[in-house]
Amino acid sequence: MRILVAPSGYKECLLAGEVAAAIAAGLARACPAAEVTCLPLVDGGEGFTRAMTAAGGGRLRAVRVTGPTGAPVEAVLGRVDDTAILEMASAGGLRLVPRDARDPLATTTRGVGELLRAALEGGARRILLGCGDSGTCDGGAGLAQALGFRLLDAEGQDLPPGGGALVALDRIETAGRDPRLAGVTVEVACNTRVKLCGPEGVSRGFGAQKGASLADIERLEAGLHRFAAVAARDLGAVGLLDLPGGGASGGLGAGLHAFLGAKLRPWAEVTLARLDLDRRIAGADLVLTAEGGLDGQSLRGKIPAEVARRARSLGVPVIALAGTLGEGAEALGLDARFASLRGPGSLEQAMARAAADLEACAEQVLRAVLVGRRMAQPARAAA
Amino acid sequence: MRILVAPSGYKECLLAGEVAAAIAAGLARACPAAEVTCLPLVDGGEGFTRAMTAAGGGRLRAVRVTGPTGAPVEAVLGRVDDTAILEMASAGGLRLVPRDARDPLATTTRGVGELLRAALEGGARRILLGCGDSGTCDGGAGLAQALGFRLLDAEGQDLPPGGGALVALDRIETAGRDPRLAGVTVEVACNTRVKLCGPEGVSRGFGAQKGASLADIERLEAGLHRFAAVAARDLGAVGLLDLPGGGASGGLGAGLHAFLGAKLRPWAEVTLARLDLDRRIAGADLVLTAEGGLDGQSLRGKIPAEVARRARSLGVPVIALAGTLGEGAEALGLDARFASLRGPGSLEQAMARAAADLEACAEQVLRAVLVGRRMAQPARAAA
Repeated sequence: MRILVAPSGYKECLLAGEVAAAIAAGLARACPAAEVTCLPLVDGGEGFTRAMTAAGGGRLRAVRVTGPTGAPVEAVLGRVDDTAILEMASAGGLRLVPRDARDPLATTTRGVGELLRAALEGGARRILLGCGDSGTCDGGAGLAQALGFRLLDAEGQDLPPGGGALVALDRIETAGRDPRLAGVTVEVACNTRVKLCGPEGVSRGFGAQKGASLADIERLEAGLHRFAAVAARDLGAVGLLDLPGGGASGGLGAGLHAFLGAKLRPWAEVTLARLDLDRRIAGADLVLTAEGGLDGQSLRGKIPAEVARRARSLGVPVIALAGTLGEGAEALGLDARFASLRGPGSLEQAMARAAADLEACAEQVLRAVLVGRRMAQPARAAA
Repeated sequence: MRILVAPSGYKECLLAGEVAAAIAAGLARACPAAEVTCLPLVDGGEGFTRAMTAAGGGRLRAVRVTGPTGAPVEAVLGRVDDTAILEMASAGGLRLVPRDARDPLATTTRGVGELLRAALEGGARRILLGCGDSGTCDGGAGLAQALGFRLLDAEGQDLPPGGGALVALDRIETAGRDPRLAGVTVEVACNTRVKLCGPEGVSRGFGAQKGASLADIERLEAGLHRFAAVAARDLGAVGLLDLPGGGASGGLGAGLHAFLGAKLRPWAEVTLARLDLDRRIAGADLVLTAEGGLDGQSLRGKIPAEVARRARSLGVPVIALAGTLGEGAEALGLDARFASLRGPGSLEQAMARAAADLEACAEQVLRAVLVGRRMAQPARAAA
């Protein structure tokens, strides 16, 4: 039996590789003879750089940059041929913002710009940048400032860091822009279903999880509107409000497009193609995928939804494991789905034992599948 | 596909019939064509009277008796031919003791004696009594008093209700014993692995869940020791400390034996035979069982352990569902086991949605089994 283990990471809990390893360990206990292939999947968020660089046979290096709260962090930069690979999460991710300091009015993407500058210094001609798991909502203002753009208020002062300052944006000056940007193309892997503003926009959809109050969300929303208007006038970037993915990573998608002419692409097209997912599914008898929380929202471009869609079209059964099974998961088109919890307890307790529970659950799921296989083969079962 | 659903109840949450119905509903969603048979199982505890009376084609009636705390409760009495069927749980069960009033020093089996008296008044010649799920630890003292025995202290005063008084037991007088007891046989379905005293005794094993503090447990232990000594001298009941099942239902097993000459039998022999479990397993392709909490302790004579043992000897696969999967469950010999929780939360939240979660989990388990069946039948799957 050939089993493909193609999970997402569990947000703020386990990396995709850790999830895959736990599942594989459980499968091995249930059926030591099974051929198990681990293919940890990423969207544009945490793990993007490592996974894309590994898939391309490239190399990684650490770069010290300004973190989302202003404190320095160690980000990671990948290189495959003339392409630099980076993710916003390693320089501005939510995980880098302590829970008691989550304030998207103040957090900045400056470190992402610094990471991109390091890529330019390394001579990259192409930039592949992953968006996702961000802890910011500044429309890419910090990134732009790190690359030499000036965002000024009506008094001609540079805006301070954070999405809260965007309401005061009066004009953008491009004269100091890093000249090396002219020669590079920027491709962004992101969730293209998130708009910059409005009911499906990033502030209202994701502001709360980044720490914004209702009043904060309205301020961020107003600031991003202001940014779109000024960018249209001063950068010629029209239509930011309607740009698919403009809201990705707190409006960083829109900023990358407006400041750098970046092309925003659905993460699944970028990452799953580079990871050769379809071919690997086609070579398996069974696919296991996983995600920390699986629910109707997972339909909106999350990893298990993509895996399920592709597996179904290839005729391979797919079962998902999750930390939490929410409402609406039945619409994902999975053959079966399981939560890996073993008993009542807090989210913190569940996260602390997530890997052990995943391993145990994967074992039991495969055992149930094997029950079905034996039921269909009474002669062999008796043998 | 013929599926036998043979679960236990979830203690203090769902009756076995409710568990079976929830599982059956989930199975029907996964595979409407499956032939599902529900066989709710009971040990000697809650549901014993209804299940045994229904299996024998008998009738039930309600009897108002003294509950474990002294407040009246409505207990149930079954009758099949000349056999009265009753359970201690309906007159002295833990569920009848409010959580904030759990005190086995004070709770009494008097109502069980009153229920038995009602059976004698009805002309029963044989008594079948289930032990389990008790909220008491009085060694059957209350039952004996309700049937006319006198338990006296050194001043010749009748002991007050509850296991806490047994340390003062000085002698037992049998003169006032209900004369109708002479003509009846008493058979008890219980957990025969529980001893009256010692490390495997009822106080130390089960006192805490009935509400006893560590000091209470030592007092109960001393009282039951005292009871065993006095019963040996005044009733000729020697060997109570070593009697298998003597500790059942807070020592009620020992009391039934000492006062009424009852024969204590393993509940599985009594109930599963009357419910025809082996024949029903043999007629199924797959067995699903369930229990609120499944762990290594389940090996000690709990329902899923019995179902698993019998299913394995009959070569039928068996999968268990549980509210909580604890340590040691791997020793139960199940083909697979699943917890039905869908996300983190308190025990109260889990109990409130136990039926819905069970239904959803049973659906997914059967879907996983069907994945395995299809994998073994590629031709049919493609058809």
